Amino acid sequence: DPKLKIFSLNSNKPLAQKIADAVGVELGKSEVRKFSDGEIQINIEQSIRGSHVYLIQSTSNPVNDHLMELLIMIDALKRASAQTINIVMPYYGYARQDRKARSREPITSKLVADMLETAGATRLLTLDLHAAQIQGFFDIPVDHLMAAPLLANYFIDHGYEGDDVVVVSPDHGGVTRARKLAENLKSPIAIIDKRRPKANVAEVMNIIGEVKGKKCVIIDDMIDTAGTITLAAEALKEKGATEVVACCTHPVLSGPAIDRINNSAIEKLIITDSILLPEEKKSDKIETVSVGELMGDAIKRIHENKPVSPLFEKKRK
Amino acid sequence: DPKLKIFSLNSNKPLAQKIADAVGVELGKSEVRKFSDGEIQINIEQSIRGSHVYLIQSTSNPVNDHLMELLIMIDALKRASAQTINIVMPYYGYARQDRKARSREPITSKLVADMLETAGATRLLTLDLHAAQIQGFFDIPVDHLMAAPLLANYFIDHGYEGDDVVVVSPDHGGVTRARKLAENLKSPIAIIDKRRPKANVAEVMNIIGEVKGKKCVIIDDMIDTAGTITLAAEALKEKGATEVVACCTHPVLSGPAIDRINNSAIEKLIITDSILLPEEKKSDKIETVSVGELMGDAIKRIHENKPVSPLFEKKRK
Ligand SMILES: Nc1ncnc2c1ncn2[C@@H]1O[C@H](COP(=O)(O)O)[C@@H](O)[C@H]1O
Ligand SMILES: Nc1ncnc2c1ncn2[C@@H]1O[C@H](COP(=O)(O)O)[C@@H](O)[C@H]1O
Repeated sequence: DPKLKIFSLNSNKPLAQKIADAVGVELGKSEVRKFSDGEIQINIEQSIRGSHVYLIQSTSNPVNDHLMELLIMIDALKRASAQTINIVMPYYGYARQDRKARSREPITSKLVADMLETAGATRLLTLDLHAAQIQGFFDIPVDHLMAAPLLANYFIDHGYEGDDVVVVSPDHGGVTRARKLAENLKSPIAIIDKRRPKANVAEVMNIIGEVKGKKCVIIDDMIDTAGTITLAAEALKEKGATEVVACCTHPVLSGPAIDRINNSAIEKLIITDSILLPEEKKSDKIETVSVGELMGDAIKRIHENKPVSPLFEKKRK
Repeated sequence: DPKLKIFSLNSNKPLAQKIADAVGVELGKSEVRKFSDGEIQINIEQSIRGSHVYLIQSTSNPVNDHLMELLIMIDALKRASAQTINIVMPYYGYARQDRKARSREPITSKLVADMLETAGATRLLTLDLHAAQIQGFFDIPVDHLMAAPLLANYFIDHGYEGDDVVVVSPDHGGVTRARKLAENLKSPIAIIDKRRPKANVAEVMNIIGEVKGKKCVIIDDMIDTAGTITLAAEALKEKGATEVVACCTHPVLSGPAIDRINNSAIEKLIITDSILLPEEKKSDKIETVSVGELMGDAIKRIHENKPVSPLFEKKRK
């Protein structure tokens, strides 16, 4: 359909190319640069009047630049008479600020939702939101994909399945995600129960579930500074795990993350390309599974008004 | 009034302190930092329930960070039950993207206006907007101050007034501003009329008005890369000006600006502190006039429901 157009902003052009390939269209011609004073300049080099535009951008670091690129592009598309403006956001930044945990905190993920709608977005397609509740921050349709089945395929292909594997959630919030992966692998689950016995005393990592003599697969939605996950890996080894591997959808990997992972008990870390891994963060321990086809398929199904969820089943072995 | 609170974000703390001093209150306790992954973290360390908050931020370079700081702080203040949230924006970034000059351009200054309102701003106090029309992008009250009378005071104090001075506008859009300064100095005006005789031929700087044997004062709202103003100064000298000085409200001064000014025919450049001048941009040619008192007075008058404009008259000698 010539009315379907895909544009990429600057955060993750290799993934955008994979998505466009999966859909079977060429990326739209546009350029996003900065003026001398740091303000964003956008050039859309082809007509998009009456088109259904899919705009690919992860709001990864530098998050404020990536978010403003997205908002300004939405504004330009709206004023250029796009028929629909569908945001494809493999990684949704500011997702952890999703509630007032303390007095006078902002709820930045709601602010981001409001900004996207105010700018003119008509739909959001995203992947493994830090909290599924963020869907409710939007008044436009949200399609929410999950990477767990893709990660499951990787583990099955590499011999991690059945009863000698245990899928580990690093906290209580991640149990649903861990259970999803465990179902795919036909393995049991375990949960890490962090507790601080008294104030000013280091956290203790209790493990709920059996890990002795098993291969542990830790799963999280994102790994940021990698503090929790490397401590969890150590605790699992101490309790008799024979091997610890980890996976996540969003490789935020800021600050000490790469050093921590390289020096940890984690033997392998499987990530997706929802966030572009820069050259300096590459490591022998890290392997990437692409979400390009997953997201491309979803775009095709949305454009053809077909349900998006069955996709996940299809990806399972 | 204990209900009047002033908070500063990170773009220009010295000016915020001057504004607070002029109002006669202490700056509110808050801190804006970045998490390890670059996301903005805000801490408001005192109750602001029921308060009238004045929030000081220039959206200068890095504009996207400064804008997001502002939006997230507004969100936090709104959720913390501030009664009114008054944005004090000495420099309004993205002001040059105020219309579609070419097809498929965004109108980012309108986007910024919409974002501020969506986040929860209830009023804007700003200074020398690049285009006065930006006031109309807002549905909340906008108070629009002008620095020309302050700059006039500087020139009068330094002996620039009367008939041997001519105030020069670097383009047709700036004539109103130049006339305002000229009225204060009781001097005539001149206008630089840039023309490109043919495509791909350098611009010619025609001067409308008499400058021979006179001291020229060029005035602009902002100086960015300083290309126009340094060429204008040269043209004025060629036409027989005895001396060229320049002034602007907003010292954007990006890229080659400082080098160009240092190597130009401009003998002195008077700026305001609407944008913080970093150490590495300081120059013997540059002098700063503060807008702290001007903006502080405006805040007091707004808070007391008094008209804001008479302020300008008061500042004139
Ligand atoms: N970018 C960030 N990096 C680290 N912590 C964050 C970030 N954004 C929000 N937070 C904090 O993380 C907490 C939420 O994390 P979680 O409990 O995993 O949902 C909140 O208390 C936030 O203040
Ligand atoms: N930050 C910027 N730096 C340089 N040019 C800009 C910037 N923002 C917008 N513009 C361009 O400047 C033009 C408007 O400038 P003006 O004619 O002075 O109002 C528009 O064509 C914009 O594309």
